[in-house]
Amino acid sequence: MGYSEEERAFIEWYPRGYGVGFKVKERLFETQTKYQRLELYQTEGFGKLLVLDGTVQLVEIGEESYHEVLVHPVMLAHPNPKRVLIIGGGDGGTLREVLRHESVEKATMVEIDEMVVEVSRIYLGIDRGAFDDPRAELIIGDGVKYLKETEERFDVIIVDSTDPVGPAKLLFSEEFYRSAYEKLNEKGLYITQAGSVYLFTNELLDAYKAMKKVFDRVYYFSFPVIGYASPWSFLVGVKGDLDFRKVDVSRAPEKLYYYDPERHETLFQMPKYVRELLEKE
Amino acid sequence: MGYSEEERAFIEWYPRGYGVGFKVKERLFETQTKYQRLELYQTEGFGKLLVLDGTVQLVEIGEESYHEVLVHPVMLAHPNPKRVLIIGGGDGGTLREVLRHESVEKATMVEIDEMVVEVSRIYLGIDRGAFDDPRAELIIGDGVKYLKETEERFDVIIVDSTDPVGPAKLLFSEEFYRSAYEKLNEKGLYITQAGSVYLFTNELLDAYKAMKKVFDRVYYFSFPVIGYASPWSFLVGVKGDLDFRKVDVSRAPEKLYYYDPERHETLFQMPKYVRELLEKE
Repeated sequence: MGYSEEERAFIEWYPRGYGVGFKVKERLFETQTKYQRLELYQTEGFGKLLVLDGTVQLVEIGEESYHEVLVHPVMLAHPNPKRVLIIGGGDGGTLREVLRHESVEKATMVEIDEMVVEVSRIYLGIDRGAFDDPRAELIIGDGVKYLKETEERFDVIIVDSTDPVGPAKLLFSEEFYRSAYEKLNEKGLYITQAGSVYLFTNELLDAYKAMKKVFDRVYYFSFPVIGYASPWSFLVGVKGDLDFRKVDVSRAPEKLYYYDPERHETLFQMPKYVRELLEKE
Repeated sequence: MGYSEEERAFIEWYPRGYGVGFKVKERLFETQTKYQRLELYQTEGFGKLLVLDGTVQLVEIGEESYHEVLVHPVMLAHPNPKRVLIIGGGDGGTLREVLRHESVEKATMVEIDEMVVEVSRIYLGIDRGAFDDPRAELIIGDGVKYLKETEERFDVIIVDSTDPVGPAKLLFSEEFYRSAYEKLNEKGLYITQAGSVYLFTNELLDAYKAMKKVFDRVYYFSFPVIGYASPWSFLVGVKGDLDFRKVDVSRAPEKLYYYDPERHETLFQMPKYVRELLEKE
């Protein structure tokens, strides 16, 4: 489980004994934050590896396979996203991708664990300056509480949390989805990662079911995220008259490596039995 | 590397130190065949695991994620596949899926390693009787030599081999593609697995380049195969007037679990940078 000194590898074991791992050169950093155990490794072939409570958050080389896919499909499906809220996303990768969109006037990020932000800025730097952008607002706090209490309204809400099996479970509850729906503008999009298609199928189904009770329409899609037990699932909740099946390719940022706006329809790849389970909900 | 008695796990390490593994209950079988080292394990959550020369060939629970995707897209893109050739595929899963198509009059399988067939039939049984089907012909022999010398012609040729980095390298050569093209009927389809999209990108590009020199058109697609470093890539070579972008959904076998003929277009999911590399070839 986790790091093995002899093997010089970090392996994350998913349910049913399925493992995804990386050969590591050394452990760079390890600490117990106020909320979770944080580990940082130097891998052999994927740059640095960030681990929270034993689960892989990201590898440096390939992290765009997650951040591009979490951010750009919703940003391009919304006609003019000015106000964006990110819940979680302490490493700054999601904020970085959001700020690539010129329409964005303000991006608020609410991260509960300040240490994740600090370690990421110092050791990873994948925010690439995003935290210093004048349009960025960083709030260290509880996303659930923030969303319930804020007077602000958003065009896009992005939940970039840990998996729906641990402390982030609240972020996958019907109550939370109701807060989010309420704080979206008349037309708005909500997106969340929803776990491994094959290994967290039940969690995906539960989240989909709860979102369908709240949003006007819900879409599911999947993408192979490097470092996770892929394919990884994502759920999109729509408020108002917006169609997530179509994106405005003309507004796509230059130099995308993973998400392919011109092949947006391929995002909806899903094993047939999972699609059928979702459609039964 | 490979099996660890202490960890009770089998881990396959791909290039750049990326690992995919399974927790195992016990090693059931281990032998050196005439061609390769064969291992069979009982995993914790995925049934039996077949390993050849240290690389995962299949896990029992989820093997359809490979066999359905290798077989049905080409079988449904061809209007009337009667004669099918399978090169490799010793476990019988590909043969099983091919024979689900009523149009098939004869399916010839050429497998070099008799021991893989024997061990699979006795310990795995994923052929589900396919080897006893009167339409099935099993030839133990060298697929490269067979294809060069046969007088027969085929509607579909399926290469179900080990990865393009080991002894199966010849199956990814331009010369081999020329033999295959020659032995296809006037309208025919050729499909091969082509390795991990992220970890064997160069092998995928090389195979694509070589196939483009030979076939009238070449298509690439990807799918998350359970047990492999997904997404896994596949290449389709077309001879004559056939369009792999369209399939005849009405001929789809009942109860598919992974390949979704009604969402055929999603098969073409590919990280943008890989698509761009392929299109440069």
